[in-house]
Amino acid sequence: MQRAVPQEFDRVLSSMCTEPHPAAREAAVRFLATNPGDPATYQSVAELENRAVDALGELTGLPEAHGYVASGGTEANIQAVRATRNRARDEWPDAPETPNVVAPESVHFSFQKAADVLGVELRTVPVDEEYRADLDAVRASLDAETILVVGVAGSTEYGRVDPIPELAALADDTPGDGRTFVHVDAAWGGFALPFTDHAWNFAHADVDTMTIDPHKMGQAVVPAGGFLARERATLDALAVDTPYLESTSQATLTGTRSGAGVAGAAAALETLWPDGYREQFEESMADAEWLADELRAREFDVVDPELPLVAASIPDSLFDALRDAGWRISRTATGELRVVCMPHVTREMLRQFVADVDSFSN
Amino acid sequence: MQRAVPQEFDRVLSSMCTEPHPAAREAAVRFLATNPGDPATYQSVAELENRAVDALGELTGLPEAHGYVASGGTEANIQAVRATRNRARDEWPDAPETPNVVAPESVHFSFQKAADVLGVELRTVPVDEEYRADLDAVRASLDAETILVVGVAGSTEYGRVDPIPELAALADDTPGDGRTFVHVDAAWGGFALPFTDHAWNFAHADVDTMTIDPHKMGQAVVPAGGFLARERATLDALAVDTPYLESTSQATLTGTRSGAGVAGAAAALETLWPDGYREQFEESMADAEWLADELRAREFDVVDPELPLVAASIPDSLFDALRDAGWRISRTATGELRVVCMPHVTREMLRQFVADVDSFSN
Repeated sequence: MQRAVPQEFDRVLSSMCTEPHPAAREAAVRFLATNPGDPATYQSVAELENRAVDALGELTGLPEAHGYVASGGTEANIQAVRATRNRARDEWPDAPETPNVVAPESVHFSFQKAADVLGVELRTVPVDEEYRADLDAVRASLDAETILVVGVAGSTEYGRVDPIPELAALADDTPGDGRTFVHVDAAWGGFALPFTDHAWNFAHADVDTMTIDPHKMGQAVVPAGGFLARERATLDALAVDTPYLESTSQATLTGTRSGAGVAGAAAALETLWPDGYREQFEESMADAEWLADELRAREFDVVDPELPLVAASIPDSLFDALRDAGWRISRTATGELRVVCMPHVTREMLRQFVADVDSFSN
Repeated sequence: MQRAVPQEFDRVLSSMCTEPHPAAREAAVRFLATNPGDPATYQSVAELENRAVDALGELTGLPEAHGYVASGGTEANIQAVRATRNRARDEWPDAPETPNVVAPESVHFSFQKAADVLGVELRTVPVDEEYRADLDAVRASLDAETILVVGVAGSTEYGRVDPIPELAALADDTPGDGRTFVHVDAAWGGFALPFTDHAWNFAHADVDTMTIDPHKMGQAVVPAGGFLARERATLDALAVDTPYLESTSQATLTGTRSGAGVAGAAAALETLWPDGYREQFEESMADAEWLADELRAREFDVVDPELPLVAASIPDSLFDALRDAGWRISRTATGELRVVCMPHVTREMLRQFVADVDSFSN
């Protein structure tokens, strides 16, 4: 059998994952064979998970955080919807018959998955001309069966941050007697936002749950998503009994989980928060602005980068030529080139990319 | 900060996970930073996943297997129920209003999780005195809204194998016009059963989907569960669009996934199937029989091991003393000691355990 070689990150501009930090990699390798899904049996990794959740809480303005290291942002988003659905069913004066979730159309496709899996209605509403949730559109979609309002803090396509406090205020004013919860999807943006002026976290608004993934800009090892909740009751709404484990209940969506992911997340957070993440953010943001300027100088339409992600309209023929040259690039739903300036993306790599843009444009 | 030390497997008798094979560990480390959730970007790990699925198909009597490497057995079981729910909704002459799933009470607790997540009714029915699905009880539970019958091939508590062909025949005779699907949960047993006389797989009966986890007796690295389907339509029923990825749709429950898990599974299967798994099964089975004999000789009630798992009634005081001595042990729902003879469990370890049983019994 031919031995497979791992994909290098040399030309990957499309991924929201990245080369893990060496400390995360080293910790992951040591914990490869452990299962945080059974914390009573695997106690040292369970302790690391507590430390990772505490660190995520500090990063997101939630000193008493509840949550866990998930398989990724999709699981965390599904779990936010699931917990909310269960809490509305159990806590509202009248359980909603067809609960709905209101989110901007910029929301990640995992919410489509959550809606299918969980049997809730997903109402996506337009974004404004700056690609952020349109508050009027959100307001118009809310009704007495709206259980959850979702805001995106660092959107997948444009890296934009929705007005989270305003969304939380709208949720608070939802018609009907039931409490409407607020979820922030900061899966990608969460490790950059602490170094910006955005209002996005638990301290800035009445946010109930959040997705924030160590294995994206947190430089942890896959799989390490983050699910955080303000209240213990939210985790309790997810728990099922575990008859044969040493532990007695489980709030995660998966069962057996990756000790490597948990240990890598704890190590990355302890190594990089806050200074290492700040330095990386400043470097990546400068790279994104540099790339945006270079593309603008070539008269491409560029979406102004708010976080380290550049979207630009380029001709299809150029896109195809770049991909044929080995660049791993992707498009937004409306067809723009999308470059995510993750930690593995260096200025030199972007210089080569721009040089290829020039050579294929002639 | 104090450096955490990984949990050793020295005294772990309760886990269905194990020390991975060195080839699996080595492959996992090489692929730590890849994401099979985006196969077009991470092509080499996507190719490894295809090879792992083909190998799992060979092992389970399904030459043209559809499926993927999941985060674990819980995800695979949830996905089986989800695909079936969606197919019944879309393909039955009349979509069932309140679809139900019939399973023996020995079924893994992930089916409780699936029922909560997916909004289906789980009907658990008694097992017979040999801890296998009671066919009369299953038959009595089937009705015109039964979308799925589940059989367990290697139960979590006793390692027993349900009569899969008979369960499939009952599913085929379900009242009503809709097709009732059949799922086999071989998460733990699947890597032992090929070396037994049991009828359990796709070739033995009209099975639609199966859970079979490389990261349990397959000696792969966590996270590596296995979800297999006979028909492409089952995977299609799980797919959601993925607007911004290079790939265009995704049938998994999670989004970003572990390249380490996929690469480890492929490496373990290529290294160990079939001879390595056969040798391990024979050794573990002999260990289980040895332990059962030793416990019987001490006049404990022992459930005859059918796969490498021993359950025995021992006094609570003895159970507590063994646990206090550092043995990682767990109990069945009815209180028996449960010892899973995984590859890391050696005869020498069991001798020490029996010596402790003796010393704490006096």
